[in-house]
Amino acid sequence: MNEQRDVWLREVGTRDGLQSIPTLFSTETKLEWIRREAEAGIPEIEVGSFVPPKLLPQMADSAAVVAEAIKIKGLHVSVLVPNLKGAENAMAAGAHQVNYVLSVSEAHSRANVRRSVQESIDDFGRIIELRNSTPAFRSVRVASGLATAFGCTMGGAVPLEDVLAAARALLELGADELAVADTVGYGNPAQCRTIFREVLAIAGDVPVAAHFHDTRGLGLANVDAALDAGVRRFDASLAGLGGCPYAPGASGNIVMDDLVFMLEAMGLKTGVDLEALLDVRRYVEGHLRGEPTHGAIAKAGVPKGFVLSAQRHA
Amino acid sequence: MNEQRDVWLREVGTRDGLQSIPTLFSTETKLEWIRREAEAGIPEIEVGSFVPPKLLPQMADSAAVVAEAIKIKGLHVSVLVPNLKGAENAMAAGAHQVNYVLSVSEAHSRANVRRSVQESIDDFGRIIELRNSTPAFRSVRVASGLATAFGCTMGGAVPLEDVLAAARALLELGADELAVADTVGYGNPAQCRTIFREVLAIAGDVPVAAHFHDTRGLGLANVDAALDAGVRRFDASLAGLGGCPYAPGASGNIVMDDLVFMLEAMGLKTGVDLEALLDVRRYVEGHLRGEPTHGAIAKAGVPKGFVLSAQRHA
Repeated sequence: MNEQRDVWLREVGTRDGLQSIPTLFSTETKLEWIRREAEAGIPEIEVGSFVPPKLLPQMADSAAVVAEAIKIKGLHVSVLVPNLKGAENAMAAGAHQVNYVLSVSEAHSRANVRRSVQESIDDFGRIIELRNSTPAFRSVRVASGLATAFGCTMGGAVPLEDVLAAARALLELGADELAVADTVGYGNPAQCRTIFREVLAIAGDVPVAAHFHDTRGLGLANVDAALDAGVRRFDASLAGLGGCPYAPGASGNIVMDDLVFMLEAMGLKTGVDLEALLDVRRYVEGHLRGEPTHGAIAKAGVPKGFVLSAQRHA
Repeated sequence: MNEQRDVWLREVGTRDGLQSIPTLFSTETKLEWIRREAEAGIPEIEVGSFVPPKLLPQMADSAAVVAEAIKIKGLHVSVLVPNLKGAENAMAAGAHQVNYVLSVSEAHSRANVRRSVQESIDDFGRIIELRNSTPAFRSVRVASGLATAFGCTMGGAVPLEDVLAAARALLELGADELAVADTVGYGNPAQCRTIFREVLAIAGDVPVAAHFHDTRGLGLANVDAALDAGVRRFDASLAGLGGCPYAPGASGNIVMDDLVFMLEAMGLKTGVDLEALLDVRRYVEGHLRGEPTHGAIAKAGVPKGFVLSAQRHA
């Protein structure tokens, strides 16, 4: 595939998806998924998370997955880490990037990780310090997600100023990337334009990604709005794997295959071969045990005459 | 509900939806649907179509439906008409508006109605003439849809110039409204911005509606783009009723309930009571016999703290 990309895509189904379904994927099945999706042109995959195995047994093999995934040529291997200990383990395993996550909503933060937002920000500072002070970790990128930036199931609306205050603090500490997350699918396109314009304005050269859930059907509309605001990095999950534990039948992360179709149809190069990606989708579906998958392009097929942007401009 | 609306919504499930499913709705069931949805605040309903009953038995009672629907206070009653004969019958039945439709794609037009695009445009001129020359029909609005404006399953891409040429011809003949339609779900947001900006520019004071299908999952993203281009009129189908005969499992028209949620969340007044609309959805679902319905908000519920725009600004 053409290496020149207009949009950078991160597969999170191997983390956000697999942690939300009952079926356990073997290490080898995860790696086959990762290998095939990297081959299809996805540049970054969040291959797992470094959380206590008793909390998320699905992620217990993350170190082993990282160790193999970093051998895949051209793939940027990232992992989710909830705290300093997780970050240390992830860096030791060889991850190229650690994606820390804090909740912008004070209520959600205290309920979910029993820490205030400020304590979470302080913890991010310690992760940056660990990276900076450890020669072996010097090349690891340290990113942070801003969860519940679009609202929270506990407190409802989250003030824009809280999102920006957290973003500023993370940037000052040296974040290599921010990912603004609509964790519970509350966001709408108007809100996306406002939030991303403001965050991009303070982020300067630091990349800002959008992490959307499709719980209320607005996932791709939010992508359109985020693109309009200038965002060129998106998280998504192949086949929309994961769902939402709070809303039976509702989808979770936006669907990677539909996202690639939309971006390519809009003339934005993703570097992804859509047909190859749909092959990976079928591989993943073959390992599910009844969990629902999502997405329209896998059912409807591409429009007659559709070509990928890279081929169109070639 | 507040009569001041930012966006005008037209329910087409009673036509586009019902004509695409095997279950036959009785006249009384259709009317109950129409009454309840008007009560929920939907300002316009395309209550049927005037086509030969042997082609679409589901629409055979359209005259009876119109005769009752026009008694509903405040409801704008429109119907689809394929030709002059249908338009005459629709006007005689008392419809407030006839929605003619022609295909912008020459290949689709010839295959579907065995007429060239120009012949279809000429037919529209005869409908306008009939309305103008018949005192009893003088107040009927005559609109035209531009089908396959975003591409066609037969010919693939449709040149923008063909869309604009048809739009110009219809406007010159005196169209009271244009509805630019992505009949087969080929459209993407970038294309929406281009097409709607151009059509709005030539339409002047004549309203321009967008008719999207969600076949490839981009329906609401296309709405966001159309809003961005200045469109404030949308067709949609409650529960996404209808589906796409060419793509099993794929959805048809965009989902009215999700559309109302999106617009209201964006702060745009629709005049619709979302909870009442979801009640109508349940009524309609109760009359289906296994046909799939679509939409996310009915499953996930509105975000905590969500209020309709009219209440927010009140």
